[in-house]
Amino acid sequence: MKELAKVASQVQASATLKVDALFKQMKADGINVVGFGAGEPDFNTPDNINEAAIQAIKSGQTKYTPSNGIPALRQAVADWLKSRCNISYSPNEIVVASGAKHSIYIALKTLLNPGDEVIIPAPYWVTYTESVKMAGGVPVVVSAPESADFKITAQQLEAAVTPKTKLFIINNPSNPTGMLYSEQELRELAAVCVKHDLYIISDEIYCELVYNGKKFTSMAALEEDIKERTIIVNGVSKSYAMTGWRIGYTASNAEIAEVMSNYLSHSTSSPSTISQIAAAEALSGPQDEVYAMRDVFQERRNYIVGRVNAIEGLSCRNPDGAFYIMINIEKMIGKTLGGMVIQNSDDFSLALLESARVAVVSCTGFGCDNFLRLTYADSIENIKEGIDRLEKFVKG
Amino acid sequence: MKELAKVASQVQASATLKVDALFKQMKADGINVVGFGAGEPDFNTPDNINEAAIQAIKSGQTKYTPSNGIPALRQAVADWLKSRCNISYSPNEIVVASGAKHSIYIALKTLLNPGDEVIIPAPYWVTYTESVKMAGGVPVVVSAPESADFKITAQQLEAAVTPKTKLFIINNPSNPTGMLYSEQELRELAAVCVKHDLYIISDEIYCELVYNGKKFTSMAALEEDIKERTIIVNGVSKSYAMTGWRIGYTASNAEIAEVMSNYLSHSTSSPSTISQIAAAEALSGPQDEVYAMRDVFQERRNYIVGRVNAIEGLSCRNPDGAFYIMINIEKMIGKTLGGMVIQNSDDFSLALLESARVAVVSCTGFGCDNFLRLTYADSIENIKEGIDRLEKFVKG
Repeated sequence: MKELAKVASQVQASATLKVDALFKQMKADGINVVGFGAGEPDFNTPDNINEAAIQAIKSGQTKYTPSNGIPALRQAVADWLKSRCNISYSPNEIVVASGAKHSIYIALKTLLNPGDEVIIPAPYWVTYTESVKMAGGVPVVVSAPESADFKITAQQLEAAVTPKTKLFIINNPSNPTGMLYSEQELRELAAVCVKHDLYIISDEIYCELVYNGKKFTSMAALEEDIKERTIIVNGVSKSYAMTGWRIGYTASNAEIAEVMSNYLSHSTSSPSTISQIAAAEALSGPQDEVYAMRDVFQERRNYIVGRVNAIEGLSCRNPDGAFYIMINIEKMIGKTLGGMVIQNSDDFSLALLESARVAVVSCTGFGCDNFLRLTYADSIENIKEGIDRLEKFVKG
Repeated sequence: MKELAKVASQVQASATLKVDALFKQMKADGINVVGFGAGEPDFNTPDNINEAAIQAIKSGQTKYTPSNGIPALRQAVADWLKSRCNISYSPNEIVVASGAKHSIYIALKTLLNPGDEVIIPAPYWVTYTESVKMAGGVPVVVSAPESADFKITAQQLEAAVTPKTKLFIINNPSNPTGMLYSEQELRELAAVCVKHDLYIISDEIYCELVYNGKKFTSMAALEEDIKERTIIVNGVSKSYAMTGWRIGYTASNAEIAEVMSNYLSHSTSSPSTISQIAAAEALSGPQDEVYAMRDVFQERRNYIVGRVNAIEGLSCRNPDGAFYIMINIEKMIGKTLGGMVIQNSDDFSLALLESARVAVVSCTGFGCDNFLRLTYADSIENIKEGIDRLEKFVKG
């Protein structure tokens, strides 16, 4: 039969979802495995949100909605962005989609023509490069070393710009590094984007998960001419423990929002009506559980960072946001662990899973060698058990 | 700022969703409007399905799932296709997506390279041509006249094939016409596809809504070499009154399924976990409500077809499936109705909405002039009221 689509055939399955699927399958098979793979809060969705969804089902609110989302949710997003990020959007500048991943995909489809270059700092969330390619763009990766807290500078950004550059993608706080750009750092990066007339996708999905009293600044809050060229991506998955509900959204200028909405109208229509109603409750209802969860994440972060840095040969930075750490395993290269000579982080993660039953994500897929990403979105007991196993594994 | 993506900028907002949004807005504004626009059952989702969703929420089944869907749903789909359509698929050949519209989009992304031609019979569901263009393909429209029951022949299909033809899309039973292809007609069309090595997307979303004891045949049930090149598209929206839950699926060969799954993993991930659990219950639970709803649709169809054909100057065929009729308004062209000289079906539908407060869809967007699409997925009282208004409007 005739060949399938070239672009689609080259898409790599998401490494993080693969690790998560493997982990869940092992668990279902009765294997005692500890998972640090998926970036998914272990908490249940808060009760008020569940209750809103149940009421929606019971009252028959299970019909089609406008393709850009129900007005109540778009208003709730606008209100939330105003109160939390100090940015003013009207509801027609908000477009709801089926998860923040979907929002990114649709934004890229709206912005990119074939051959347009997109600058992506590494380590990056693996979907950025894949979805840029799916939208016909060319990812241009700018690497930030651990010594720079995994953050790129304005000088690095400037050096990567070519006449073909269309877009800069920033994830703040970052998956996989957990690092947070300061307002000043954002201003410097944004100035380069204004100078070269670049669009910005600012993925702020972890903006509620910031620790140590550090301040999160939204890219669009900086200046009007930055806001105009910025597409904010956010959603309810991480802050409200709503990963499986699949609600993300963008905030952008109205022209971009309209093209996105039209694109959605023929590619998916809106996300689940029930999930939209639940998300509106999440954003407009009581927020205390968000802060309670954040406090727990901070405790877990303190614990895991302390434990990892106490293991000889391993180290990690102490991140200010999200729920990930990056473990540096450079000193493990060449050693034999779990019966395998470790050549790289892929080997390490495979040996760790097979011999110690601990699932982590190798960062090669994130554009970064010799690092592992661990999430601490799990109970302290599981974290303790997993790190105990890691420690034993490394000691050999 | 730099230009947006050319392809996305040219996407037209879905005409049917626009009519539906306008209708819902008018209703919300307190206007007494009757809607024949959206292809959406007026029934509530059956209780057993709602209950499964509520239990999922209460038990915290609100986390990420594999990007191609939960195993229980993929198994339920495979079992359902076996029992209802007599086709055997394994669960790894099933890919769940966020509505049948989404399944079509992802299938097109998986099949088409730039410039590939796709043959689409007209009148067509408006999303086919738009989503083919969104996937870089070229729609080649083959028109079926009302006198042929809006069905194309194998000879017409053959005549449209060129060396660039990659795919044939068929919707059976059809939106917007409600027409049903017989097994013999399908065999003749499929033979052309086998001869020219074409893929087939067979959109069978209305397969449970077939009347008069007519028999629905799935394209993939015909022969093994037809099944191998066919992507079945189906979902729970229409048969189970689950439009807002957004669950569609494909059944295809494993190679296509894997590429689709990878594509999903970076563009949306899976649909709502809650909706997936509800859909599994829909397909594997009691089916009596499906048949009860079908009987009601048949009664409504009989009523609306009788009423329309009794209006002087209007006519419609009696369709065997789905929940749409196509009203021929040729004899209205040039008349003045509602204060407007009617030049085409767009004028007619606009005048009807403005002066008689009845929302219908003009079929110009479906590749067919001088016809209106009306859905009878509404209560008999509303249908009566709407047709009364239509009758009065036409009489002037």
